[in-house]
Amino acid sequence: MSNRGEGAFVWIIPDGYIPEESTGSQRSHEAICVLNSSDADAHLSITFYFENRDPIKDVSVTVPAERTRHVRTDLPDHLSGAEIPRGVPYAVRVESDVPVVVQHSRMDTSQEALALMTTLAHAVAG
Amino acid sequence: MSNRGEGAFVWIIPDGYIPEESTGSQRSHEAICVLNSSDADAHLSITFYFENRDPIKDVSVTVPAERTRHVRTDLPDHLSGAEIPRGVPYAVRVESDVPVVVQHSRMDTSQEALALMTTLAHAVAG
Amino acid sequence: MSNRGEGAFVWIIPDGYIPEESTGSQRSHEAICVLNSSDADAHLSITFYFENRDPIKDVSVTVPAERTRHVRTDLPDHLSGAEIPRGVPYAVRVESDVPVVVQHSRMDTSQEALALMTTLAHAVAG
Amino acid sequence: MSNRGEGAFVWIIPDGYIPEESTGSQRSHEAICVLNSSDADAHLSITFYFENRDPIKDVSVTVPAERTRHVRTDLPDHLSGAEIPRGVPYAVRVESDVPVVVQHSRMDTSQEALALMTTLAHAVAG
Repeated sequence: MSNRGEGAFVWIIPDGYIPEESTGSQRSHEAICVLNSSDADAHLSITFYFENRDPIKDVSVTVPAERTRHVRTDLPDHLSGAEIPRGVPYAVRVESDVPVVVQHSRMDTSQEALALMTTLAHAVAG
Repeated sequence: MSNRGEGAFVWIIPDGYIPEESTGSQRSHEAICVLNSSDADAHLSITFYFENRDPIKDVSVTVPAERTRHVRTDLPDHLSGAEIPRGVPYAVRVESDVPVVVQHSRMDTSQEALALMTTLAHAVAG
Repeated sequence: MSNRGEGAFVWIIPDGYIPEESTGSQRSHEAICVLNSSDADAHLSITFYFENRDPIKDVSVTVPAERTRHVRTDLPDHLSGAEIPRGVPYAVRVESDVPVVVQHSRMDTSQEALALMTTLAHAVAG
Repeated sequence: MSNRGEGAFVWIIPDGYIPEESTGSQRSHEAICVLNSSDADAHLSITFYFENRDPIKDVSVTVPAERTRHVRTDLPDHLSGAEIPRGVPYAVRVESDVPVVVQHSRMDTSQEALALMTTLAHAVAG
């Protein structure tokens, strides 16, 4: 296993959307899931893009060496205080100082039961 | 961050399908989600392919610089007036004049509750 | 647009599974969704792999020029008569004589409501 | 078809999570789905990463030649006895001695009905 990390330095997720409504015991949310398989901490700088306003840039998140982090975009304390509004389309760009792998998932409980979707982010060639 | 954009110029989505039925407060739909991280507007030309008829070509959509757009395929006013029928398999090809990233998602409320699915589109090598 | 086709000649889908049960008006099923954006017909040869038996090889499917086809794996008449059993894990390999793009989706109605999942297949480098 | 296998030697899945709750007749679970299209058995070494503890390394799984295996991460007997806790984020790295293709899927029955999500894993360049 490479100790210098695996994956890419830049990842992009076009379809972000945190549903406004929730039902049942689980709240609708999204997570940016990151694996840092290297032996150095990964320092992420995250940008959030919107349809009708300027981006929120330079949101800092650290993923320790040999750890995963599932960063909830509906929880400001996962995002150094940044607030992503519910009910608004957004997109995400993740830049890291060591190679990582990024996946994005949504849990939607806005109608009865729940729905899930996920995809790997797009890895931008180095 | 590159100001000339990230991603690819051509993206393909084979599995398009807008369910005929909906339940609850949310209508079944699909969206082509695009991020333009460049500092220039992206002009998209979208082609819709079907099983038993000729393609609908050259549907124009603009994604402004540093913006995302979630293009609903069930709303003709998102597609310069083009109408995609419900209940029919289709596929999508997106061509852009600056590099973008494309993801495709479906919300299906045809039975109780709702279901979601998503995937990045396939990036055609330049 | 290239008239010689876009995508790849070989695609692989590891997670195939047609649920045994269905509820409501829609039957649980999977589809191999193909776009042929070229101006020549694409002749596919599909292999189905299983956990405990030999593969089913050389299932023929044609996708006409500039058409999509959503091939249902639960319908033998979509597969030149091949029968894929329900309730059994399987995997799929698609080989084409012109470049195509392949996506795989499951609709599961085995419990109340329905669930969807999808992913692009893995494109094998030429 | 190549007899030496198709795909990649290393695959990464950032978003693992086995829901604690289940409803109905189907238990919430995840599966690492692998296709080995080569004519030699594939010996996998799987690593599981967590947010707040050291990884579980060197979990051995064999996928016979021309077979698929859908490895349930909630079943220790699929993982040479390794136990992945429910209700905890994790990530997965799969390394193989022959090229394979890896996809990861979740079935969540924690609220009414069920939800599915899937994605191809990220293929690390050789």
